[in-house]
Amino acid sequence: MTKLDDLYANLTLPTKAKLALIVLDGVGDLAVKDHAYQTPLEAAATPNMDQLSREAIQGRMTPVAPGITPGSGPGHLALFGYDPIETQVGRGVIEALGLGLELKPGDVAARANFCSLDAEGLVTDRRAGRIETDVCERLCGLLASKIKQVGSAEVIIQPGKGHRFVVIFRGAGLEGPILDTDPQREGLPISKAVPANAESAGAQKAADLINAFYEVALPILKDEKPANGFLMRGIAHQPNIPTFQERYQLKPACLAVYPMYKGLAQLVGMTKVEGPQTIGEQFNRYLEIYDDYDFFFIHYKYTDMHGEDGNFEAKKKAIEELDQALPILLQKRPDVIAITGDHSTPCPMKGHSWHPQPVLLSSAFSGTDKLERFTETGANLGSLGIFEAKFLMRHMQAHARMFDKYGA
Amino acid sequence: MTKLDDLYANLTLPTKAKLALIVLDGVGDLAVKDHAYQTPLEAAATPNMDQLSREAIQGRMTPVAPGITPGSGPGHLALFGYDPIETQVGRGVIEALGLGLELKPGDVAARANFCSLDAEGLVTDRRAGRIETDVCERLCGLLASKIKQVGSAEVIIQPGKGHRFVVIFRGAGLEGPILDTDPQREGLPISKAVPANAESAGAQKAADLINAFYEVALPILKDEKPANGFLMRGIAHQPNIPTFQERYQLKPACLAVYPMYKGLAQLVGMTKVEGPQTIGEQFNRYLEIYDDYDFFFIHYKYTDMHGEDGNFEAKKKAIEELDQALPILLQKRPDVIAITGDHSTPCPMKGHSWHPQPVLLSSAFSGTDKLERFTETGANLGSLGIFEAKFLMRHMQAHARMFDKYGA
Repeated sequence: MTKLDDLYANLTLPTKAKLALIVLDGVGDLAVKDHAYQTPLEAAATPNMDQLSREAIQGRMTPVAPGITPGSGPGHLALFGYDPIETQVGRGVIEALGLGLELKPGDVAARANFCSLDAEGLVTDRRAGRIETDVCERLCGLLASKIKQVGSAEVIIQPGKGHRFVVIFRGAGLEGPILDTDPQREGLPISKAVPANAESAGAQKAADLINAFYEVALPILKDEKPANGFLMRGIAHQPNIPTFQERYQLKPACLAVYPMYKGLAQLVGMTKVEGPQTIGEQFNRYLEIYDDYDFFFIHYKYTDMHGEDGNFEAKKKAIEELDQALPILLQKRPDVIAITGDHSTPCPMKGHSWHPQPVLLSSAFSGTDKLERFTETGANLGSLGIFEAKFLMRHMQAHARMFDKYGA
Repeated sequence: MTKLDDLYANLTLPTKAKLALIVLDGVGDLAVKDHAYQTPLEAAATPNMDQLSREAIQGRMTPVAPGITPGSGPGHLALFGYDPIETQVGRGVIEALGLGLELKPGDVAARANFCSLDAEGLVTDRRAGRIETDVCERLCGLLASKIKQVGSAEVIIQPGKGHRFVVIFRGAGLEGPILDTDPQREGLPISKAVPANAESAGAQKAADLINAFYEVALPILKDEKPANGFLMRGIAHQPNIPTFQERYQLKPACLAVYPMYKGLAQLVGMTKVEGPQTIGEQFNRYLEIYDDYDFFFIHYKYTDMHGEDGNFEAKKKAIEELDQALPILLQKRPDVIAITGDHSTPCPMKGHSWHPQPVLLSSAFSGTDKLERFTETGANLGSLGIFEAKFLMRHMQAHARMFDKYGA
């Protein structure tokens, strides 16, 4: 907790207000010549967001720090108001969340992938010839059926795509991070698991468990070809994060479709509301659970997905589809509504980027920036300016009148 | 002192420039439908500020941190360039300043209010039936006439409005904060004064004094009805702040009408220039004392006052009145002129708010942002961007060419 966090906590008043955070994943984009210098948000027909914009303020958010491109983990932690540099979530944990695994505080998770070993145990192919997913699933099933426990820890094995899988160690007093067992180069043996911090007893315990896991797992795979070994990376424990409800005095619900975002929401203690598969269904579910929660995190994946593919038209259509569904949400208009992304995923870049994402915020106390539309270029002119994404929650809380006056 | 403070201090050069900070208290507002989406600043006729704007730059300032609504204390400390989170001024001190009391460094000040006690000394009404101000004045006079000293400390008692008053303890080695003696609920006795930090010898000494004060004061009130007791809150000492002159190498004068702002200026060592009652008189006084000071803090209360009342028309007129008087100041045009507020007090909210206030800065080195007017929406487009109010002093110093080049 920083001094500023303390100040926010001390000023926080309970509220009956409803706050909705609508995340168009990777919505931010670049105006380039190939698309007549228009972004998908500019090119899309968005009558409902346009309407909202007339009673809203805008700005742009630096997802982490200038020039830093975030993954989904830091991107969402910042949106949830956690400092994405101070609150690091290991890649093993993110990978586990992405596979839909439910992690418990203290669980140690590792990204693993099958590899090929020669007779001396030296790595000959770090990706085992990129085996197919069904082979990976069979091998994970084999390991899982034979290994339920190592030492005092429960072991959970979950296949991913291709040669990738995840292993979770669940037991008392475990800690990460543990250095990768991946030697990074072929011709070397699998590295022993070693704590990143030699003085952490919990990490030593976890490293010992991982080495013990190898002792029982490698013999099970010894006759497999080409996947007779495996490497582990990003071995980390689920961090102990103050829950969203503790931090903001808001009871949060997550309305997401994809496991990764449900997992990230769960990491901060949000309730996952299962069922809806489309944005229309998500908004309808919001109407149903309106009375039961104070804060609604509504995640929309397709803007990012089409940005990753560099598919401008599809990204534009995805924005239009969300806009068309927006009136459902507005049937019970939240007191504070924020629409933004967790980062930009510009079509010309076919991937996440560091470009600040636009944000729109509307409440009875937002006034208006008199902008006709919600776009990147418009957002540059808004009264929110360019700010760090981790402060969005504080802006939303203020607009819900959740902060007492500071000082006399 | 932070590393950045040190840097500024090391780069500071003496100047013959004159700097004027004109504070329209609570000037920032919201564009809402009820007022045709115009703020008072937008609706007001301000030919003189418009003229100034053509040779000025603009921006908006976050008074404390995103979403935080400041009281006058933190709002002005930030304008004076002090970090409003690091430099906390207790409510007792602010209350004393607001009543026009002159505090000395180390003085411990308490907000007090009369209450009613039953025969066992239990609080039956925490506000003594909200007695009238004249009763409060009589009771304070009674206490003050009988108690001049407690232990080694001088005692100063000053009535406020209704049931409220202020007590100051002046003596060597005293410190705050002290926990409230207000039990917060009726049916309980007055709490003993206890240091907030048990390890502070100065706070223990102050707490002992307060308890000794109760010993002599309660018998004096025992036959009064309904105000036969009193409670104390926000008990704090005047913080030891580096003076404005030490910090900036500028000799400052305060031209304010209301006691609170004179008090806040005095807290940082500004000279209070007494006399003027209207903004015209304040500007005329500025002309008279032009040669004697380097920095002029000119405070205008009415924008805030009418914002608190939600009176759009009156707030608009108050802005126009200041604008009409501005040519007086410009007879001896300061080298650097900044016009802003200490926070926003939007009419639709009838109170202070967190919305960044607009700021205009003009000097021979400001260039211009080519904005025709000084308004919230215009300020969004200015080259100062949105910045923390505590940096305004540094912008003003730079525009007075008070900083040497950093590094070769």
